[in-house]
Amino acid sequence: MAQYAKGAKAERELIEMFWDNGYAAMRAAGSGISRLPSVDVIASNGKKTFAISCKSTKKTNVYLDSEEIGKLKSFSEKFGAIPYIGVRFNGKNWCFLGMDKIKRTEGKKFTISRKNSEKSGKSFERLINSN
Amino acid sequence: MAQYAKGAKAERELIEMFWDNGYAAMRAAGSGISRLPSVDVIASNGKKTFAISCKSTKKTNVYLDSEEIGKLKSFSEKFGAIPYIGVRFNGKNWCFLGMDKIKRTEGKKFTISRKNSEKSGKSFERLINSN
Repeated sequence: MAQYAKGAKAERELIEMFWDNGYAAMRAAGSGISRLPSVDVIASNGKKTFAISCKSTKKTNVYLDSEEIGKLKSFSEKFGAIPYIGVRFNGKNWCFLGMDKIKRTEGKKFTISRKNSEKSGKSFERLINSN
Repeated sequence: MAQYAKGAKAERELIEMFWDNGYAAMRAAGSGISRLPSVDVIASNGKKTFAISCKSTKKTNVYLDSEEIGKLKSFSEKFGAIPYIGVRFNGKNWCFLGMDKIKRTEGKKFTISRKNSEKSGKSFERLINSN
């Protein structure tokens, strides 16, 4: 629960960053309909729309399974949004990875390391100024 | 709490209706940042985007205050969505009212009666086939 609360706080900070930069943004309800695709944060300025699955962690790696990636992709495709994984490692800023930056590890798992996020991720500023 | 659970259930039904009709849709987290504009449901098929404030009730009238209407409008404007109030009276289907259909009553209150919603509201089918 502490980790969930921390994650929710980090997501609210991200929402505020979007608003401060001309976007409307909101968090998805946790109690979604689990069989339906969903994302954690959606933001748009009427021109660009981002759908973001968020992960915050104090560890050095973040893991995602292929179902989670699949839901992000299918939500984004239907909604007309650009899909991103938003990662926040302890003591770092938000960092955003596009679908081409996610490395499949073994089986159905995908992983993002702290190092890899620094190398191939985008900062918030780069995110909103790209695409 | 019973009323909240009922409202959440009705919103989930609405989300499913959108998915069944080619839209991606999601509910907003209840614990938003209250000073920021928010809506209850957002749905898009990449062409049309709806931002919806939802009300379900067993009473014969639904009341909204001007702050709520203002938040719906400003969220929608920034996001690039069409704003609607979605109303679900007990035993009735969802019904959607555009900003021009909301009557200001006294002071800062707006009201939607069961009768008025039948007269000037749109069914879900009309909603997704209009605009």
